[in-house]
Amino acid sequence: MESQSILIKNASILNPIGDGKTEEFRKDLLIVDDKISQIDEDIDESNADKIIDASDKILMPGFVNTHTHISMSLLRGIADDLELDTWLNDHIWPMEAHLSEEYCYIGALLGACEMIKSGTTTFSDMYFYMDGVARAVDEIGMRGVLSYGMIDFGIEEKRENEFKENISLIKKHNNTADGRITARFGPHSIYTASVDLLERVRKEADKYNVGIHIHMNETLKEINDSKENHDGKRPFELLDSIGFLADDVVAAHCVWLDDAEIKLIKDNGVYASHNPCSNMKLASGAAPVAELLSQGICVGLGTDGASSNNNLDMFDEMKFAALLGKASTLNPKVLTAEEVVNMATINGAKALNIDAGTIEVGKKADIILVDANSPNMTPMSNTLSSNLVYSANGSNVDTTICNGRILMENRKMVTVDEELILSEAKRAIKEMKELREADE
Amino acid sequence: MESQSILIKNASILNPIGDGKTEEFRKDLLIVDDKISQIDEDIDESNADKIIDASDKILMPGFVNTHTHISMSLLRGIADDLELDTWLNDHIWPMEAHLSEEYCYIGALLGACEMIKSGTTTFSDMYFYMDGVARAVDEIGMRGVLSYGMIDFGIEEKRENEFKENISLIKKHNNTADGRITARFGPHSIYTASVDLLERVRKEADKYNVGIHIHMNETLKEINDSKENHDGKRPFELLDSIGFLADDVVAAHCVWLDDAEIKLIKDNGVYASHNPCSNMKLASGAAPVAELLSQGICVGLGTDGASSNNNLDMFDEMKFAALLGKASTLNPKVLTAEEVVNMATINGAKALNIDAGTIEVGKKADIILVDANSPNMTPMSNTLSSNLVYSANGSNVDTTICNGRILMENRKMVTVDEELILSEAKRAIKEMKELREADE
Repeated sequence: MESQSILIKNASILNPIGDGKTEEFRKDLLIVDDKISQIDEDIDESNADKIIDASDKILMPGFVNTHTHISMSLLRGIADDLELDTWLNDHIWPMEAHLSEEYCYIGALLGACEMIKSGTTTFSDMYFYMDGVARAVDEIGMRGVLSYGMIDFGIEEKRENEFKENISLIKKHNNTADGRITARFGPHSIYTASVDLLERVRKEADKYNVGIHIHMNETLKEINDSKENHDGKRPFELLDSIGFLADDVVAAHCVWLDDAEIKLIKDNGVYASHNPCSNMKLASGAAPVAELLSQGICVGLGTDGASSNNNLDMFDEMKFAALLGKASTLNPKVLTAEEVVNMATINGAKALNIDAGTIEVGKKADIILVDANSPNMTPMSNTLSSNLVYSANGSNVDTTICNGRILMENRKMVTVDEELILSEAKRAIKEMKELREADE
Repeated sequence: MESQSILIKNASILNPIGDGKTEEFRKDLLIVDDKISQIDEDIDESNADKIIDASDKILMPGFVNTHTHISMSLLRGIADDLELDTWLNDHIWPMEAHLSEEYCYIGALLGACEMIKSGTTTFSDMYFYMDGVARAVDEIGMRGVLSYGMIDFGIEEKRENEFKENISLIKKHNNTADGRITARFGPHSIYTASVDLLERVRKEADKYNVGIHIHMNETLKEINDSKENHDGKRPFELLDSIGFLADDVVAAHCVWLDDAEIKLIKDNGVYASHNPCSNMKLASGAAPVAELLSQGICVGLGTDGASSNNNLDMFDEMKFAALLGKASTLNPKVLTAEEVVNMATINGAKALNIDAGTIEVGKKADIILVDANSPNMTPMSNTLSSNLVYSANGSNVDTTICNGRILMENRKMVTVDEELILSEAKRAIKEMKELREADE
């Protein structure tokens, strides 16, 4: 196949460089095939297959959403403003009982459209019917890190099935779709998965050389139950005691942590995924992100599922992360705009072992262009990060490129029929509600 | 002048009805001149001057932003992530020293564009060079409640000047622009205005029959200073002791309140303006909004100025209000989507004494249409309020109507040249920065 190239002219480039720092410069950027091949003044236009004038645009890495349940987009707004137990028992689980591979495929297309239209190029998912999710990711052109939500409640038969499902996902989809899809193990949490399951996940993850995606320390109840059920051990202490913790683990939420647990996260190189909207909406609490960052722990950002957020917009997540960090510590200097941009890009890429998340020659071309010529983005005074974190919204994204391929341009989806996806999603949730009503 | 009419067909109508409740129905709505004149099934199309098909849209009242400093839009992103003192002394005040009526006019046009494009039809402002702001409001077609930020620091000469300025604003602009502009007194706060100033504001407000806009109880420092400087009185106790409190006062922030102060707010019919983004970004704290609402106090929403937010988007403010309310009380049931929609519309209209904020025949036609056919708004499961508060962003607004006149349609500004405003705003802030540099 011949090389394909895209030349982006004269963009204001925002490059997250790690350690909470960014650099800004105005240059041209050339994409050849799936990679960034040149960043320079006045790159020659004659060989480019496509040229984009980005004079009024900010160029930055596509966002990395480190924790979601993409197909739950179908359950957006199914129920809100409830206690967690009521919400799960009376609303979420009865609907999830009617999921199918087709519905999860449609839900994944809906969620992927929303993510692409708000600048996300990679997401890490944990859910069910993952063949459907993989099919959607393959077709739409995003990068997906997929895990199956393993829940055994201590029942051996169920446990066997969960390993069958997650290992099938890994065998069928890991490193497929030109490398855009990777797979992981997804033990749901320490309160839904047994110690036997967790111990075996560690062994299988080593065997298959894949990562692990798990919910950790989300609610105070989880901590108290862990101490009661596991000889006084808090959740991270429990995982440490079985040798589970390593630098291939991404732990979502991490809201309630004590100093000993923070040390375990740090010493074992565990990655944290901060999910401020979900934590606030479900009233779980405020994660000690400023403390984690100050200890050098790599914290990414995640939206969680659309039914506890209720969107998949990383701009929302960045602003909530910055503002919750300040409000919960009463310190306006923590979680600066630059730190939060790092969390949403380079940190997430590190957590998911993706060769993207920065604007450097040789990196995968996962890039977005944000329209800076709108009232909410005017003027641009301090840093590009300031307007992106505090002023922008997802609809300011103009163009989304993943793996060197344009997925959205001028806010129009390129790889899929958006109208068809919206109507299919409406049909799917209507059918699921009918099935659910027939239960009663 | 002949009557002008707009017929909006087949809209999903969200009507906030007070007390945290909403109603939803699908009907046609007819606007004649500045008012809603009919809400019905199949309204006759033959007499309408303009027909809008709203089949895929949510129709709701335009938002009422109860606390902002609109011309500060020019100072968006001037400095972030700093202690309040550093931010004010080293960044905001040195720039404000170079304000002029022209810059405040341009800043007001910029802020008004942003508000109209994110669905706000009324804002309550407190700032300087208010003739420039009034001119912008008149031209662009919004509804503005304008006050001059009165600061005397106890100096009599300064105090006289502040009354001259604010009374001039009232005389020149109150009830102008077809009633779209009203004026109020704007004593800045109890820590910048003397007791003499505050006492006289009460008298003059009664004399001119206008309301009062004031910052109250924003930071813990303000409470401690008040007690130290005013015989142990907290800010609301101080105002109560001079007979200042009444049902024409809108108190912005109201973060740090004790039970006695909440009772004073309630007993005197004072309105509160909740500003969650600003309170979180400046790490001021979390206002006890759930408690205020449960006491029957009327709480509106406000963005504060763009330099401490950093946008004027009431969708951001609604989501932050709901999620901060839940997170700060660890109770997911408080500040429901419906309550927050009420805060952003009908409550604000009550606070500002505006005959709008609901969708009823006879009310002023301050109406927005929100595009519901986008990935982040699909599906629409629970209530219209859920998707509006938790999933939407300002750019989902399609059409904004104020006083019966279309200000934005299909996301294009109708009454002003948006491109020109953006370029003028960039020029203004560039000039202000040059003037500021020349100071040093």
